[in-house]
Amino acid sequence: MVTLKQLAKELNVSISTVSKALNNSEEIGEETVKRVKELAQLYNYTPNKVALSLKQNKTKTIGVIIPDILNHFLAKVLFGIEREATKRGYNIITCISNESLEKEKEALELLANGSVDGFVLCVAEETQIEGEVNHFKRTIAKGLPIVMFDRVAHDVLCDKVIVDDFDATYRATKSMQLKKRKNIAFISRINDLSVGKLRERGYNKAILEESNQEPLVLNLKKKDDSQQKIKAFFKKHKNIDGVISADSSSGIIAINTALNKGYKVPKDISVIGFASKSVSNHSIPRLSIIRQHANQIGANAADLLINRLEKKFDEEIEFKTKIVKTSLVLSKSTLK
Amino acid sequence: MVTLKQLAKELNVSISTVSKALNNSEEIGEETVKRVKELAQLYNYTPNKVALSLKQNKTKTIGVIIPDILNHFLAKVLFGIEREATKRGYNIITCISNESLEKEKEALELLANGSVDGFVLCVAEETQIEGEVNHFKRTIAKGLPIVMFDRVAHDVLCDKVIVDDFDATYRATKSMQLKKRKNIAFISRINDLSVGKLRERGYNKAILEESNQEPLVLNLKKKDDSQQKIKAFFKKHKNIDGVISADSSSGIIAINTALNKGYKVPKDISVIGFASKSVSNHSIPRLSIIRQHANQIGANAADLLINRLEKKFDEEIEFKTKIVKTSLVLSKSTLK
Repeated sequence: MVTLKQLAKELNVSISTVSKALNNSEEIGEETVKRVKELAQLYNYTPNKVALSLKQNKTKTIGVIIPDILNHFLAKVLFGIEREATKRGYNIITCISNESLEKEKEALELLANGSVDGFVLCVAEETQIEGEVNHFKRTIAKGLPIVMFDRVAHDVLCDKVIVDDFDATYRATKSMQLKKRKNIAFISRINDLSVGKLRERGYNKAILEESNQEPLVLNLKKKDDSQQKIKAFFKKHKNIDGVISADSSSGIIAINTALNKGYKVPKDISVIGFASKSVSNHSIPRLSIIRQHANQIGANAADLLINRLEKKFDEEIEFKTKIVKTSLVLSKSTLK
Repeated sequence: MVTLKQLAKELNVSISTVSKALNNSEEIGEETVKRVKELAQLYNYTPNKVALSLKQNKTKTIGVIIPDILNHFLAKVLFGIEREATKRGYNIITCISNESLEKEKEALELLANGSVDGFVLCVAEETQIEGEVNHFKRTIAKGLPIVMFDRVAHDVLCDKVIVDDFDATYRATKSMQLKKRKNIAFISRINDLSVGKLRERGYNKAILEESNQEPLVLNLKKKDDSQQKIKAFFKKHKNIDGVISADSSSGIIAINTALNKGYKVPKDISVIGFASKSVSNHSIPRLSIIRQHANQIGANAADLLINRLEKKFDEEIEFKTKIVKTSLVLSKSTLK
């Protein structure tokens, strides 16, 4: 890479002249500006933005750390962050923690040294299990604010955006009970995540409020053959007339398994799942879904961070927690 | 953030002593090293890695630019890049171009100024349509190598990793013809992408080699209701006995639509689609798939870049193009 110094030498002018010419300073004559710019272009000269950012202490860039890029919900949140950031004139750079505490720490350190102004992140599974929060606190102490979304560390004082997971399954279960469903099952492949546990508790609460049914839960492991397990579950519990699914695929598989066994959906079995609109298309009838508004979660998180960076809050001491409510979008897999 | 200078002042030693102490230099006494480190920790001092990288000209970080984070295939490639990079001691930071030429240029500039040593990227749709390549060439001219994967710019001299899209659908179609399928249709939601066009051509070639069938293609738009369109397509073409799907969802929808209309799968209609293993579970029988080995594509791309960064090639002038072959994984949606 060519430097200002080399350009100056070749043109036989001072470094400051080159710098001013590149910045269109009025102190420099038109002819010189033209000569400098032509040579700079010839040599592919670009001002070193990193060096600039060290001076100005502003990168206009947000660091995003997400635990799992194969998770469609997280990918959509990232999309929402990206869109909001762009609208406000910020770039984003993303690191993936792969659910590892170590990688999360590394990503924070990598980006905290001059590359970004602050962070939007979702806490890694391992970090949640170990209850480690010092790396977050250290980052904030360095002057880089953090906004956490979805999986948050309650011990860290920072802005947060969360989902009403508990309420979502509570309401979905209630809506089935209102339609006289008497044996509603809960199927989940995300029992190991905090949000999975919250969803199961919301279902449990609704079930236990009715005296005539015990909770009926099928927890699938990541390695399980979901089709086989759900088929066996239906065979064992013949009176199931409703299914709440906590993840993005077991609701679809439940419908297809029910149809395959000769049940009518929704007449014999109603199904509601957490899933995106595009996946809800993978069954006929379409899956009724609990929508999480991932885009909005991302947009809110970016908005909170940028407001803090631009000091739009009244008080430095105040932190915000936003709840993005899910909505129940009923399709033909549930009785109207 | 505290600086070396401030630490030196407080400890009443020279800046160079602080720097050497932090780097465990043998020139500095044990006691001093201890004092310096304690104070540095107290003030959360971290060496400014960006400044270091400017000096050493090595960041051990790879910039990844992907066009669409909601695309599961691209997310999986990113996962593969991340894993290989970690294994080799490199970090990755990712930018999303959102299929926009402008954003792709911005991402290259943002990261090229000291944050990364080189790039792994998949070309944005708009860039492909406009045929723009100068931003790639400029980046390479600055000394930052690029490896392109999946969607590549053939006019740019660099390392590449591509998929055998044409061969994949050609072979899948041939395999159905061998099972005496006479009316094989092609359904695609990605007709606007270069890989989508290649897949259609592979199908066309196989069909045109047999004299008894004309190509029968359904191109879906992103906004279309796929279930409705596929249902109407089956109604119009009653003799369809095979479907090749170019994207990750229309194969699943084709099976479910066929079952819904009372067809038997695979007896009446065989279906093969480009999809991941987890999505292949969304139909009963399971969808037979063309697997793209996204992980391997990512690992190969990272490997090529790191080898180039570490100058493991014999010649600087030589560029490599690796082809990662797809495999046909037959499940119960096709006759054995």
